[in-house]
Amino acid sequence: MKKERQQPCVHTDKQARHIETSSDDTMFMEEAIRLSAENIDLGGGPFGAVIVRNGQIIAGGTNRVVPNNDPTAHAEIMAIREACNKLKTFRLDECTIYTSCEPCPMCLSAIYWAGIKRICYGNTKDDAKSIDFDDSYIYDQIQLPNNKRDIKSQNIMRNEALKAFQKWSIKEDKTPY
Amino acid sequence: MKKERQQPCVHTDKQARHIETSSDDTMFMEEAIRLSAENIDLGGGPFGAVIVRNGQIIAGGTNRVVPNNDPTAHAEIMAIREACNKLKTFRLDECTIYTSCEPCPMCLSAIYWAGIKRICYGNTKDDAKSIDFDDSYIYDQIQLPNNKRDIKSQNIMRNEALKAFQKWSIKEDKTPY
Repeated sequence: MKKERQQPCVHTDKQARHIETSSDDTMFMEEAIRLSAENIDLGGGPFGAVIVRNGQIIAGGTNRVVPNNDPTAHAEIMAIREACNKLKTFRLDECTIYTSCEPCPMCLSAIYWAGIKRICYGNTKDDAKSIDFDDSYIYDQIQLPNNKRDIKSQNIMRNEALKAFQKWSIKEDKTPY
Repeated sequence: MKKERQQPCVHTDKQARHIETSSDDTMFMEEAIRLSAENIDLGGGPFGAVIVRNGQIIAGGTNRVVPNNDPTAHAEIMAIREACNKLKTFRLDECTIYTSCEPCPMCLSAIYWAGIKRICYGNTKDDAKSIDFDDSYIYDQIQLPNNKRDIKSQNIMRNEALKAFQKWSIKEDKTPY
């Protein structure tokens, strides 16, 4: 993180809530892009993301699929995990994510689960496709009914599985999300 | 894991490749369901999954969103991470995932990224909706064009972001995936 550039936006509890402006957008996207380029030299893919709340970068992430042996280690997922870990929450409702590339469906879904309010992205899905990261295949697949997808899917033992849902339904001290 | 039940399916390099049968499906799904029910008592959500290769359970996972403060910690994602970590790979091409509930779009996309070949699930999306885990909202949202989604999305600084993609394109010693 470039601390000297973040300084004008550092948030303290005493400050009024900071609303991101277009110049903030530029600064935060520059950091996401910087991470994406740096990550190539560090053995990862060309993707970076930062999560911002109240004008302050909470966390950054890069694509670590290959070095970490983790197909879920996309930049946005890494940034969400890190931000939630730092803030001790599973919700990022007040946050914007700046990502160097338009999110794939896994990351977009994670952004929804996290409750992030806004997405800024640099490269488009088509740009990603042009360097052989083809998210559009997965976007197309998940829109199909189960029996039309390339990965075969089978529903078995529903009645047995339902018992855990019933157990959950009657549990009193649960945290819904 | 119920070791005594796994034993008939334990794979060794000396064995011919094991092809899953419907009785194997029952056994593996029972384990996914057992994990889903046990996880409720452990402070997690009512979801469990196991990943199987050549008739052997490689890894299991449960929903740990709330206890881990991680909105990406769904059972399938946890199982994929664990299986990849154990096998030292980011691809699970030879694997089947048994999950106690039909995957949400984040997990389904992760299953595609991991290259898993087959999905068996117990509870359906509608069952999940009936206990207030409504994946259908996210399925509906990701099918919309960017400007129609509830989370606002903005494309900025594409030319700057493209430079990292160009850097990746000309890198010679990269691992494509």
